[in-house]
Amino acid sequence: MSIDSPEKYLEEIFHSQIPITREMGIRVAAYSGISLSLRAPLAPNVNDKGTAFGGSLYGVLVLAGWGLLHLKLQEEGIAADVMIHECNVTYSLPVADDWEAYCSLPDDGGYARFLASLRAGGRGKIRLEARILKGGRAAVSFSGRYAAVIRTASGSVPSPPPTFPAG
Amino acid sequence: MSIDSPEKYLEEIFHSQIPITREMGIRVAAYSGISLSLRAPLAPNVNDKGTAFGGSLYGVLVLAGWGLLHLKLQEEGIAADVMIHECNVTYSLPVADDWEAYCSLPDDGGYARFLASLRAGGRGKIRLEARILKGGRAAVSFSGRYAAVIRTASGSVPSPPPTFPAG
Repeated sequence: MSIDSPEKYLEEIFHSQIPITREMGIRVAAYSGISLSLRAPLAPNVNDKGTAFGGSLYGVLVLAGWGLLHLKLQEEGIAADVMIHECNVTYSLPVADDWEAYCSLPDDGGYARFLASLRAGGRGKIRLEARILKGGRAAVSFSGRYAAVIRTASGSVPSPPPTFPAG
Repeated sequence: MSIDSPEKYLEEIFHSQIPITREMGIRVAAYSGISLSLRAPLAPNVNDKGTAFGGSLYGVLVLAGWGLLHLKLQEEGIAADVMIHECNVTYSLPVADDWEAYCSLPDDGGYARFLASLRAGGRGKIRLEARILKGGRAAVSFSGRYAAVIRTASGSVPSPPPTFPAG
């Protein structure tokens, strides 16, 4: 497994463990430690109107949140499964080109509460917002509540979290 | 274009105009005139936990509503683009096998209002509910608001709506 960078590591997770992401052409664009952006091309995700299929736009948004939590938990040394539990999506503008979905940790203390709950009781929930922008405006807005559950020895125990080199 | 049945016709629309539906293996299972069910296999849509990827579950749900409206508008002889505008999704149980998503027209008069608005002003909105069931319980629930806009002569004018043989 490539661990040259968190971006390459996460992209390999997507492509090997969620294979439809390969067909969708999803790439990991950038990870800052508090935010993640993913890219997808229009061509494999096009719809009957020549714009991006709403299901593909959603797929990249839900994975922006999932991927951000996956990387954060790796950094924290926590082996947990992350799942989307509930979400709301608003499509405001059609997306007629390749696109990028952006998700960042909330600044309301939600991440600290999520981590504390996960460490104390093995479970945590967190709400994340993600966006696809077009000319500075939100073309698609996503608000999702994710759940994480610590993996037990009887469950699927992962290999130790990788350590990313600095820079 | 195969017009042997509305199911085959819609499946061909999906696979030719929304190509990621081929990669997802989406099939049109049944259309009753007021409801539509779609099927998808687990294998191409699997996630890191060995269950169905939330983005794929969503894709089949959003297309169940879209496909139902597409067939109804063909029957009405209305050439319109249908788009998802806003939705809420709740994942209650993991889906660990092939699945079916089911959507039916609302019984609150919403479809009649949608048609009347579309015919009077060229635009209509309608809320549709779709479900993925597992052992009689809703594994995933979707509530989406769709918009339809009549195609104008300057837009992409479709071929005449096909007429489905009876039975």
